[in-house]
Amino acid sequence: MDNHIVIMAGGIGSRFWPMSTPEFPKQFIDVLGIGRTLIQMTFDRFLPICRPENMWVVTSAHYVDIVKQQLPQIPSENILAEPAARNTAPCIAYACWKIRRRLELEGGDADANIVVTPSDALVLNPEQYRRVISSALDFTAGSSAIVTVGITPTRPETGYGYIHARSNQGEGIIKVQEFKEKPDLATAVSYLEDGNYLWNAGIFVWKLSTIVSSLRRFAPSVAEVMDEIAEAFYTDDESRVIETLFPTCEKISIDYAVMEKSPDIYTIPGNFGWSDLGTWGSLRQNSAKDADGNAIVGPSVEQHECSGCVVHVSDLKHVVIEGLHDYIVAEKDGRLLICRLSSEQRIKEFQK
Amino acid sequence: MDNHIVIMAGGIGSRFWPMSTPEFPKQFIDVLGIGRTLIQMTFDRFLPICRPENMWVVTSAHYVDIVKQQLPQIPSENILAEPAARNTAPCIAYACWKIRRRLELEGGDADANIVVTPSDALVLNPEQYRRVISSALDFTAGSSAIVTVGITPTRPETGYGYIHARSNQGEGIIKVQEFKEKPDLATAVSYLEDGNYLWNAGIFVWKLSTIVSSLRRFAPSVAEVMDEIAEAFYTDDESRVIETLFPTCEKISIDYAVMEKSPDIYTIPGNFGWSDLGTWGSLRQNSAKDADGNAIVGPSVEQHECSGCVVHVSDLKHVVIEGLHDYIVAEKDGRLLICRLSSEQRIKEFQK
Repeated sequence: MDNHIVIMAGGIGSRFWPMSTPEFPKQFIDVLGIGRTLIQMTFDRFLPICRPENMWVVTSAHYVDIVKQQLPQIPSENILAEPAARNTAPCIAYACWKIRRRLELEGGDADANIVVTPSDALVLNPEQYRRVISSALDFTAGSSAIVTVGITPTRPETGYGYIHARSNQGEGIIKVQEFKEKPDLATAVSYLEDGNYLWNAGIFVWKLSTIVSSLRRFAPSVAEVMDEIAEAFYTDDESRVIETLFPTCEKISIDYAVMEKSPDIYTIPGNFGWSDLGTWGSLRQNSAKDADGNAIVGPSVEQHECSGCVVHVSDLKHVVIEGLHDYIVAEKDGRLLICRLSSEQRIKEFQK
Repeated sequence: MDNHIVIMAGGIGSRFWPMSTPEFPKQFIDVLGIGRTLIQMTFDRFLPICRPENMWVVTSAHYVDIVKQQLPQIPSENILAEPAARNTAPCIAYACWKIRRRLELEGGDADANIVVTPSDALVLNPEQYRRVISSALDFTAGSSAIVTVGITPTRPETGYGYIHARSNQGEGIIKVQEFKEKPDLATAVSYLEDGNYLWNAGIFVWKLSTIVSSLRRFAPSVAEVMDEIAEAFYTDDESRVIETLFPTCEKISIDYAVMEKSPDIYTIPGNFGWSDLGTWGSLRQNSAKDADGNAIVGPSVEQHECSGCVVHVSDLKHVVIEGLHDYIVAEKDGRLLICRLSSEQRIKEFQK
């Protein structure tokens, strides 16, 4: 049974304005200044365990050309355009129903093992990552279980949802007790001490048949739309049908639609240096830094007496910063932000 | 006798990088964001007392086109290009010898009253300025005196040279005792208390015949080069001769060449809101400021919790600054500087 990878790449990255904009969001940016964008790094991470013909990207119609340009190895028919954002359940359903249709048309095994992943997370240890994913794939291949990869927490993070596992024994597959929303700090501290709580990284492993039947059971309205769309897959009518029917899907997350309802959810703890790079602060932490702790990405940036800054410059030719401590300096396409790292939660209100 | 105005516009404005660059320096910039550049404001200031045909600009050959574009009222033959910078004495001599040649060719009065002024200073009260200049012109018209306009000091400034006047009685013309270099703070305080010391603003008033004979006497080598050049003025050979001979002039300031040597130097105290806008701090002081004391010039600059900043943005489309206090933010042509106002003396070392 072949593995398929579904990369979800529809986010708009508004916390990273102006580096990330709705026209060209974070997952398509070389945020670390290492020569590969986040979605390219996601692709690279799976390449040893999945042929590009079995990789799929679901993204906004606006980003299809960017994906084609950044991931030319993926067949363009595997790049699925959402005419409107409908959260993760319709996104995942779209890819899975499309994979199912391809398998039907190919006439071989009608089932497949699938990994669903965000496009914009960072993994510092891809080999360990692939070991965890392979364990999960081995497990789902022989069962109708759903596996969500859990990240072993390293701090009482209040910015993530948590997975409450039934035990923390070993590194293997563990049954999930329940999912927890983003906690307050005291709760996050207790989760960390408890040891049975893992970060929910939004990485899912399941068989095609499992997710299809789970969606049918727990999100039947989404499954019905997909059944209708699926008849048009690989026909001349495909684009028109997608554009007409996809937006009629309910806006619903896969967590709410399936994960919190299915009795058959497992997790596998991962300890592979994961970060969702969800804040400028975490971007700074995960970047190469100079002796003064500044993470600087840009062609010609010179710092004097600066420390703890994160600088991301795209189009300026030459930048000199002096006497800044713990600031964000970000520029792209004629937009410039200078902002304290401690104020980064205000960035959303700045981009009117 | 007609008045002539000589505007010296050869400076490179290196303290204001990157707003000001050697390619497009400060005097050609609308530094206050009011719709007129500093050299245009200098022109405007003299227009009520001088016809444009009697205005002259001496500048680097690189800036001639900028001057023509910014001051189209001044005849292009009055825009004098220095092939190389040779400090103020050759600059002033060039203009005065040229004026003399024009008067000779016109066959009328061979003398004229002349004001020499920098192009990049600010005058907040131009009417009062013109009253002072007119008094000086009245005085020099009937004498062979040299008048240097002195600015009544308002603080113990260590960044300017001082004029030691013989008395501080009244607002009229006073004999100059001596010129003083930039003082240390204690000396500057004593100058302020003394009351007989004025800032040297580099504004000179004299008759053509006076400055020509003074240069002949105190800087004969410069005068000799000018005599040779003058034969080519208003001929086809002019450019070639200037390019060949002007660079052979000694590099010498008018202060050192004439002012400190001539026995016939007077000053007239001016109290017309003068600033040489020599620092970002003085630029901030002299600009319109928001309620938080930020002086912001630029098309779309938004500040949150900033104070005491000076922001000058030329090409960026949109700028958001947050949490900056007493900083310079300056951008032009793809170059960006963010620097504490207290560190602005370091800007010269930043622009390699």
